[in-house]
Amino acid sequence: MAKSVFYHAGCPVCVSAEHDIINLIGADKVEVVHIGEVRSRIEEAEKAGVKSVPALVTPNGNVLHINFGASMADVKG
Amino acid sequence: MAKSVFYHAGCPVCVSAEHDIINLIGADKVEVVHIGEVRSRIEEAEKAGVKSVPALVTPNGNVLHINFGASMADVKG
Repeated sequence: MAKSVFYHAGCPVCVSAEHDIINLIGADKVEVVHIGEVRSRIEEAEKAGVKSVPALVTPNGNVLHINFGASMADVKG
Repeated sequence: MAKSVFYHAGCPVCVSAEHDIINLIGADKVEVVHIGEVRSRIEEAEKAGVKSVPALVTPNGNVLHINFGASMADVKG
């Protein structure tokens, strides 16, 4: 099965949601991307439809914005 | 393992998120509660910390607000 991608920026809300998502879905089914650090992947996240972090992009391309940590504008700084 | 509880109110955002969550976590691990119809469970959802729907309450009690369909005030009408 294709993996989901969890985009986050290291904020407390992000870290908490990351733990929950990994517990629920399984670490082997989620790629975790810290777009605050791996800035080269910000564009990829935006193209996928990520408006804020934390967000989970499912294997079929849907974006689940989970709680609210930071907007993409904040991430880009 | 304890189940997560997915609260929703039948809105399009809710239905889409429900499909994604069930695909990701598995239908046997999520109880789906339509609080627009089962209004007796609105209070339970609020006590769990649900501020808007759709929302997933994890087995350890964390609330993941997923996208935004409707506020609890809207659900209560």
